[in-house]
Amino acid sequence: MNDVRRQESHRCQTRRVTATDSALALEQLYADFAANDLIPLWTVRGDLMPTAPRPSAAAHVWRWSDVYPLAVRAGALVPVGRGGERRAISFANPALGGHPYATPTLWAAVQYLGPNEVAPAHRHSQSAFRFVLDGQGVWTIVDGDPVAMRRGDLLLTPGWRWHEHHNTADAAMVWLDGLDIPLVSALDAGFFEFGPEEVSDRSTPVTSRSERLWGHPGLRPLGEAEPDRASPLMAYRWEHTDAALDAQLAVAASGHPSRLARGHAAIRYTNPSSGGDALATIRMEMHRLAPGATTAATQSVGSSVWQVFAGEGTITMADRSVDVGHGDVVSIPSWCPLTISARSALDLFMFSDAPVYEALGLAAPRGGST
Amino acid sequence: MNDVRRQESHRCQTRRVTATDSALALEQLYADFAANDLIPLWTVRGDLMPTAPRPSAAAHVWRWSDVYPLAVRAGALVPVGRGGERRAISFANPALGGHPYATPTLWAAVQYLGPNEVAPAHRHSQSAFRFVLDGQGVWTIVDGDPVAMRRGDLLLTPGWRWHEHHNTADAAMVWLDGLDIPLVSALDAGFFEFGPEEVSDRSTPVTSRSERLWGHPGLRPLGEAEPDRASPLMAYRWEHTDAALDAQLAVAASGHPSRLARGHAAIRYTNPSSGGDALATIRMEMHRLAPGATTAATQSVGSSVWQVFAGEGTITMADRSVDVGHGDVVSIPSWCPLTISARSALDLFMFSDAPVYEALGLAAPRGGST
Amino acid sequence: MNDVRRQESHRCQTRRVTATDSALALEQLYADFAANDLIPLWTVRGDLMPTAPRPSAAAHVWRWSDVYPLAVRAGALVPVGRGGERRAISFANPALGGHPYATPTLWAAVQYLGPNEVAPAHRHSQSAFRFVLDGQGVWTIVDGDPVAMRRGDLLLTPGWRWHEHHNTADAAMVWLDGLDIPLVSALDAGFFEFGPEEVSDRSTPVTSRSERLWGHPGLRPLGEAEPDRASPLMAYRWEHTDAALDAQLAVAASGHPSRLARGHAAIRYTNPSSGGDALATIRMEMHRLAPGATTAATQSVGSSVWQVFAGEGTITMADRSVDVGHGDVVSIPSWCPLTISARSALDLFMFSDAPVYEALGLAAPRGGST
Amino acid sequence: MNDVRRQESHRCQTRRVTATDSALALEQLYADFAANDLIPLWTVRGDLMPTAPRPSAAAHVWRWSDVYPLAVRAGALVPVGRGGERRAISFANPALGGHPYATPTLWAAVQYLGPNEVAPAHRHSQSAFRFVLDGQGVWTIVDGDPVAMRRGDLLLTPGWRWHEHHNTADAAMVWLDGLDIPLVSALDAGFFEFGPEEVSDRSTPVTSRSERLWGHPGLRPLGEAEPDRASPLMAYRWEHTDAALDAQLAVAASGHPSRLARGHAAIRYTNPSSGGDALATIRMEMHRLAPGATTAATQSVGSSVWQVFAGEGTITMADRSVDVGHGDVVSIPSWCPLTISARSALDLFMFSDAPVYEALGLAAPRGGST
Repeated sequence: MNDVRRQESHRCQTRRVTATDSALALEQLYADFAANDLIPLWTVRGDLMPTAPRPSAAAHVWRWSDVYPLAVRAGALVPVGRGGERRAISFANPALGGHPYATPTLWAAVQYLGPNEVAPAHRHSQSAFRFVLDGQGVWTIVDGDPVAMRRGDLLLTPGWRWHEHHNTADAAMVWLDGLDIPLVSALDAGFFEFGPEEVSDRSTPVTSRSERLWGHPGLRPLGEAEPDRASPLMAYRWEHTDAALDAQLAVAASGHPSRLARGHAAIRYTNPSSGGDALATIRMEMHRLAPGATTAATQSVGSSVWQVFAGEGTITMADRSVDVGHGDVVSIPSWCPLTISARSALDLFMFSDAPVYEALGLAAPRGGST
Repeated sequence: MNDVRRQESHRCQTRRVTATDSALALEQLYADFAANDLIPLWTVRGDLMPTAPRPSAAAHVWRWSDVYPLAVRAGALVPVGRGGERRAISFANPALGGHPYATPTLWAAVQYLGPNEVAPAHRHSQSAFRFVLDGQGVWTIVDGDPVAMRRGDLLLTPGWRWHEHHNTADAAMVWLDGLDIPLVSALDAGFFEFGPEEVSDRSTPVTSRSERLWGHPGLRPLGEAEPDRASPLMAYRWEHTDAALDAQLAVAASGHPSRLARGHAAIRYTNPSSGGDALATIRMEMHRLAPGATTAATQSVGSSVWQVFAGEGTITMADRSVDVGHGDVVSIPSWCPLTISARSALDLFMFSDAPVYEALGLAAPRGGST
Repeated sequence: MNDVRRQESHRCQTRRVTATDSALALEQLYADFAANDLIPLWTVRGDLMPTAPRPSAAAHVWRWSDVYPLAVRAGALVPVGRGGERRAISFANPALGGHPYATPTLWAAVQYLGPNEVAPAHRHSQSAFRFVLDGQGVWTIVDGDPVAMRRGDLLLTPGWRWHEHHNTADAAMVWLDGLDIPLVSALDAGFFEFGPEEVSDRSTPVTSRSERLWGHPGLRPLGEAEPDRASPLMAYRWEHTDAALDAQLAVAASGHPSRLARGHAAIRYTNPSSGGDALATIRMEMHRLAPGATTAATQSVGSSVWQVFAGEGTITMADRSVDVGHGDVVSIPSWCPLTISARSALDLFMFSDAPVYEALGLAAPRGGST
Repeated sequence: MNDVRRQESHRCQTRRVTATDSALALEQLYADFAANDLIPLWTVRGDLMPTAPRPSAAAHVWRWSDVYPLAVRAGALVPVGRGGERRAISFANPALGGHPYATPTLWAAVQYLGPNEVAPAHRHSQSAFRFVLDGQGVWTIVDGDPVAMRRGDLLLTPGWRWHEHHNTADAAMVWLDGLDIPLVSALDAGFFEFGPEEVSDRSTPVTSRSERLWGHPGLRPLGEAEPDRASPLMAYRWEHTDAALDAQLAVAASGHPSRLARGHAAIRYTNPSSGGDALATIRMEMHRLAPGATTAATQSVGSSVWQVFAGEGTITMADRSVDVGHGDVVSIPSWCPLTISARSALDLFMFSDAPVYEALGLAAPRGGST
């Protein structure tokens, strides 16, 4: 019995000793990893490679009733100056650790330009658009082409084009800016250059040169050079968008089959020279829901930002439903289930990073293959 | 000496005999080639492979003043019936040996539809367009979508779509048909099917469903299935074409650089879902010349057909210049030098086989490489 | 009664008169059409637009036992000279009206080069390949790169590359030439240029420069300029083709699913820089059937030419079956049903115009859409 | 005077009061921004949008003499288990804040598999490759196809393919793993699934099925389904890579022009079905420098990782030069100037994120346009 006890004790002791040695060896190994800038996969695998996307970004709603007054106050207190460049206030996803990003790839901001103010010329690799919730009177000059900004319009500034804005009106103007700043930053691909202080062209044509050349349905101007990947059309006017959405609903109502849910119409803003997305890294769309209509439920790889242009409805993000109205902005992270329903007629502007995933073969849920 | 002489004589005789034998052997060889369905390259190489294209097709002008009265007479004498299907009179290039082809790849015809007449439904692999010189009142129904035909409009019937025409007016209507019949015939790729006798839809909407869905500049309807290679837009309206050409001239006049000659504007009809040609095998364009303007001289691989829509000018084909006016039709063979100048403001509709050459790497003068 | 009779008679007379007038009017109309280079569709529609392809070309077999001796006789009687350029004897489809074409788009010929003979340098828009049934000893020099020709090899001469052949052996060599001459001729797209008389490089490397740079599976040489549409690889060696076909049969036999019939393997010769067809206008493939195997029945839009490389089998074209063996050449017109079965192990080289139809959206039976 | 003084004093006081008010108002504005998840651009613009890429990642060198012994120690102490999945030790760029990433988009790790060990099956959206510095005896089974791993080979595991590794040898094996984990993580696009514990196929063929079907230069197997975007070829063998590099140097030495510097050869591993990069998100290349040769200086948008396969040389990153030898790993951040020179014959394996930038139009320095 003593022997047995001793043996057991010995065994226990051995175990303890071995455990201690092994633990020490492991501890030393991990210390040596750290000292050599190495990290073992097995300690981090689950976080690195979840079974489905676990975005840190949150589904989040910003209320226009909160945002707009703050933009007005900024207009009174903060000049538009060289360096800061723009009086733009970014929607900062609260789950992204203090970064001024709406989602991990998309920047969204409200830009405020007071009466007769000027935002001076610069250019950058980042692609940008402006969507006008209300108002008019600002011209954005893109590579020398003055483009009027009016309610409901989508205006483009593809990467590396000079652009500046000036307000010709006695009233301030506010709009939504969207850019691929977070994506370009994550990829370390950004270049930036300051332009002249003075506005290059103070003319205020109703129609930009890009529209006069490229804004006719299905017609390509032969005098123009082959466009690069971004759209050569700098303005998509509300009158066309509105008419297209109305027509879609009417055509579907007359019995023509649609891939969208009943009472749901949508257009994508495209590059007329390729039929693809108007910007290489940002998809832009306008959605219209008839009163009472509900979209089909979606769950996409990639993130999006929505702004209510007109009407009232409910956005359901996973388990949470939020009532939204004019100007409210919503961020939808990757793989978040989404449904939208309309209480009144509801128009929503949407932009997303979908072209990035499609270009990289990452758009299909799960596989790298589509 | 006798021996020598005899020898020489023998030699001569031998030579003669050998020559004769060889000639006979060659003759027999060629006969055996023929008997075995073989043809030696060296007897045909120069014709097969000229140093530059030597098209059999001619540069040719058909006068509207000749063609139109004949179409009217056909309207009085020939019914539109099953089998013949269409009262279409083709422009037969006089150098193409009696084939009803404007060029080796392109079919052009004037189609005449009397008051209240119907051209019944059929479909075929061949792609077609209609260009309206004058008049209105006919609807062409493409896969169930009634499309109004009006002056200056371009209407499409991509391959294998059901189509039928009916005239709702009290006046006859005449238009230009263009198809890839010769190409599809040379390629043995044609299929054809008769449809019902009765008009499928007698409604007369001002705007077709295809226009309501796809006819907004840069806007893609998300409810629609992915289009195939041909354009989903069945009508390109004159009002847009006219405005686009005017704008181009005005923009160029204001100093914007153009790749075209001074006073020359041109649009290509494109597929809004791809930015490419509206039909896979036929390019269609409208050209406008300001009074006194002249196009840059061109010499292209591939053939084209031009019709004067409005105005008067001069077409120079190689060494020959012809004055042309309203409705005149001109065929330009491959590699034929071409210049056009305008006496008055001049609008010309053009269609060509250029997409074929681009798709096959044969567009560049000389090489298979571009 | 008289009145009635008179009326009837009048009517009859009127009818008769009208009929006569109408017939005369119609006759005159047709004469006027002809005088004005116009042809009415309704008199030709059925031939122009058949319900399915009705190729004039015939399914036809040329026997190697007939062809080869004729090539040898031509070698003895006809020099290779400037102008004729090549001692090539073309397979002339008996239904193509005396044209030296195997099908409406494809040229096939047997080329014979005697001991130490030279076929001097030229270049042309037409794309060409050579397939070697037997023998070796000839080098073809493509843009300065000497390429050895050996049994079972496929050698390319893409459009507009200089090429010349010289035989280094004491024996004649015979091979199959394939070109897109009929297609390029129908399209009036051909250019041709004579090169120097003298062979540019008499070196006889086992491996061409193009193979040394581009002939490694999946590896792209970064030092090379971006290739144009044709393959940068000028030689596809039999040892690779043979191994690939054997491997396919073995892998399928081990249970891996195949899209081909049991006992059928096939490879397509591709451009390693794009994965597409090695030539823009010609598809080339090698097929292998195990003894007793039969291909799935096919019926394609577009034509092809087959040559038996090794073994014996039966080719069934529509209702007709023909036994074929080493060197026999068969032309298959568009839309002709085709099945091949093997009596012994059977290897067949095939070339076709399929890339043309795919590029133009005409490959799918019936529609222009795929 | 009193009035004046009072006025001035008043003015000053007013100013002071206003200044204070304004500062307070601004402070309150910023607080309200923060409370509403908003961030003003003008406080962060310079960091967000630098004038040229300012990557946080460092140019960094890991010494094989440090890494390899740690891998061996991990082999002795840490089992390969479910959950952790692989005994992979990642190269953690010291400037990336503790993330196990070599660059912001690329994961690199050394994987160690002991004698007879198994790394069990799993699959994930992330694409992976393995590059073998030394040794052999492991088979990686990709979607059921056992692929041998040998010195100098590149092996692929495209996204969402099942894969498992097992070591058949009595010796451990070590290799380099590369994945797009950081990119897929930044994009919230990752999916992961565990497979069975047991090895699916313990056979050890010298050649994988993928090689037997797709590993023949320029030959495409017709029995196979159309591949998706990733390469269907799972193994690129050293014998081919080595021969290709030798041939390039020899061909260049014989006078053929090269785009690379003198004495520099390089191949890219491509997808034989498309000619593009073998993986949609990762470029892989092997570079060879003759003794004494130096690469042209480059400065690219996007990051890369290099491993010395054989030989000794010097890598110059911006102003810093480092001598490197067998197995050393170097990370190069975006826009970092890079030159490599060889002391002995030098072979370097390289992988980068270049396909991402090319797909998104961000590859060109500065502009979004290329």
